[in-house]
Amino acid sequence: MGTIEVAADSPFGLDNLPYGVFSPAGGAPRVGVRLGDTVVDLATLLPTDAEVFAVPALNPFMAQGPARWREIRRRVTDLLAGGVPAAACHRIDAVAGHLPFEVADYVDFYASEHHASNVGRLFRPGAPPLPAAWKHLPIAYHGRAGTVVVSGTGIVRPRGQRAHPDEDMPVFGPSLRLDIEAELGFVVGVGSPLGSPITVDEFDDHVFGAVLVNDWSARDLQSWEHVPLGPHQGKSFATSISPWVVPMAALRAARVPLPRQIPEPLPYLRPGAPGGELWGLDVDVAVEWNGEMVSRPPYREMYWSPAQMLAHLTVNGASTRTGDLFASGTVSGPRADQRGAFLELTWGGAEPVRVGGERRAFLLDGDRVTITGTAPGSGGGRVGFGAVTGTVLPAPS
Amino acid sequence: MGTIEVAADSPFGLDNLPYGVFSPAGGAPRVGVRLGDTVVDLATLLPTDAEVFAVPALNPFMAQGPARWREIRRRVTDLLAGGVPAAACHRIDAVAGHLPFEVADYVDFYASEHHASNVGRLFRPGAPPLPAAWKHLPIAYHGRAGTVVVSGTGIVRPRGQRAHPDEDMPVFGPSLRLDIEAELGFVVGVGSPLGSPITVDEFDDHVFGAVLVNDWSARDLQSWEHVPLGPHQGKSFATSISPWVVPMAALRAARVPLPRQIPEPLPYLRPGAPGGELWGLDVDVAVEWNGEMVSRPPYREMYWSPAQMLAHLTVNGASTRTGDLFASGTVSGPRADQRGAFLELTWGGAEPVRVGGERRAFLLDGDRVTITGTAPGSGGGRVGFGAVTGTVLPAPS
Repeated sequence: MGTIEVAADSPFGLDNLPYGVFSPAGGAPRVGVRLGDTVVDLATLLPTDAEVFAVPALNPFMAQGPARWREIRRRVTDLLAGGVPAAACHRIDAVAGHLPFEVADYVDFYASEHHASNVGRLFRPGAPPLPAAWKHLPIAYHGRAGTVVVSGTGIVRPRGQRAHPDEDMPVFGPSLRLDIEAELGFVVGVGSPLGSPITVDEFDDHVFGAVLVNDWSARDLQSWEHVPLGPHQGKSFATSISPWVVPMAALRAARVPLPRQIPEPLPYLRPGAPGGELWGLDVDVAVEWNGEMVSRPPYREMYWSPAQMLAHLTVNGASTRTGDLFASGTVSGPRADQRGAFLELTWGGAEPVRVGGERRAFLLDGDRVTITGTAPGSGGGRVGFGAVTGTVLPAPS
Repeated sequence: MGTIEVAADSPFGLDNLPYGVFSPAGGAPRVGVRLGDTVVDLATLLPTDAEVFAVPALNPFMAQGPARWREIRRRVTDLLAGGVPAAACHRIDAVAGHLPFEVADYVDFYASEHHASNVGRLFRPGAPPLPAAWKHLPIAYHGRAGTVVVSGTGIVRPRGQRAHPDEDMPVFGPSLRLDIEAELGFVVGVGSPLGSPITVDEFDDHVFGAVLVNDWSARDLQSWEHVPLGPHQGKSFATSISPWVVPMAALRAARVPLPRQIPEPLPYLRPGAPGGELWGLDVDVAVEWNGEMVSRPPYREMYWSPAQMLAHLTVNGASTRTGDLFASGTVSGPRADQRGAFLELTWGGAEPVRVGGERRAFLLDGDRVTITGTAPGSGGGRVGFGAVTGTVLPAPS
């Protein structure tokens, strides 16, 4: 038995304890929890619960529901504060990380007013920046669940059609405007049957945790294809998520009031219980482009709350499943250096940023983007999300 | 051992043999094949292959690939033409039907020129009826895989937001314009890895079979929400599919030339192999509303071929998985009585049709819609899809 050393300022202290799936050298993928720079093998730490931890996805554990999430978090916290068998501990740089859960359906929202307004100004100059429905409902679309990949997966530049500037016929080839979208994603643990909406008040009964998301976007493909059914090939080639699912319990201290919503949303988007409140999350997101910090999007600025997103997603009777991922859409703040997509950060490419001494607008082959995030923890320090990173690989020739 | 009797004009003869998942009275769901009005339990008929048939989904069998699909089809055909153990046979009205496969990702195309043009004329009068990209690529969006349900599942009228005709604030309530979309859907058996597009020529290596689809649509919710990210709540509440997956092998005799494509599509949407040809399917679809035939959409009129849909879906590097469902979008023909959505059939509600002696535009509670389809079979007769049917249930109060 030994004690796991954790630096005092580590964003992976005892008040975080995010879950992921890892494989030790030569071993099969299994569930672990991160403390400092150590990954603790939960099937070894809690052998009586191995049926949900000696498996390659968080889904079985997530499906057990909030009472079990609380029980396991309490037991793991107690054990890690004391002594831990050496056999359960792996150095984080000695293990491989995997997609932490099987993604059921993936829905991407559009919940930042700053992002939506910037996109509106860029693509519909002269018109109102927000679509007519934007302040009444959290707009969203379904993305491709099968191409959600874990941080570190190489991102092959997508090929597809884009409009030709002068001719009627489109051009086929590698995307010339490959972009990112820095987002937070929420993971459903306990699903809901067809015809049973999840109210704003019931969020904690269903949502297990959160990840960082990079919704890679090929802007030239997207702008050619998107009328009238929305984004498809411009986004379906890859969506990266961070390897650690931060439990909603670890984000309790990060809950903050939402920006004021005017007009007041319809009743199904409001708390129903007496004293119920909507909340946002005080997560500081950071975007690095080839190692240089280019943006710091503040999640606390998001207009729609995660609970409103889930309430809207299900109010029409749609069911949810363990492993559903719903993401916030690009996180952008009011300032120019708080924009979570390069499209906005460089104002459609017209105002390049400096990266590595060069003026850059969109991603080149070999570029690496890393998104990180931290939030206030219950211990007075910060809790961190694992980084979501990806390197752009050349399109097939 | 006995012989299964099949009416000479049955659309479920030996040249069809669609696969589904059923449970006999008191039994667990398992894979069966339909011959006439008999469901044959494949794990009983082929005991050495029970590991892929004594299971509640077609996914394991579909994942085995085209050589196995051919082998099993040949063996089943031979056995059914001879004697079959009584223990393997169930009357179709004595078993329960289930969703035949676990749906991975669900993509819905927009491949009928007649449908897309009608929608354009209805919603953008005065503008060109087709979006700029329409003749260059098969437009599509991702739908909700988790709400794909089997025929017979009740369809609860969705609630949601719709625009108020006179005020800025939207109204919340049950959809007033609940509609159908009659479609054909294609089921991926063998997936493809990230970064490996499936060419037009490789369709048969990946696609296992086809089903009928009813993509229920709440037009009032959809028109309020869809800018700029496309349909979401207006469709995510339910998509019904027929319980029998017709193997692509049974649709060989139904292959017909496509309508001429002008302009010629980009090379990735053309056959690459010498002598390769694009094909459509000569499927006669029929739509019954409360038992009255209201439309007969001809699938052979579809502009984009199934192979072009799959090639486009993957050309950006997107992976596919066993159980992916991609549907054609509404099937509509050139004539008014060939339109596969009530929106078009009633011209936005302005030209109601007669149903049960009443003039009707959209669905009322208690209405029942049944979509059927048949195609030429290799035996000189017709092969049928199972019906996809659904009854509208009232919205929760």
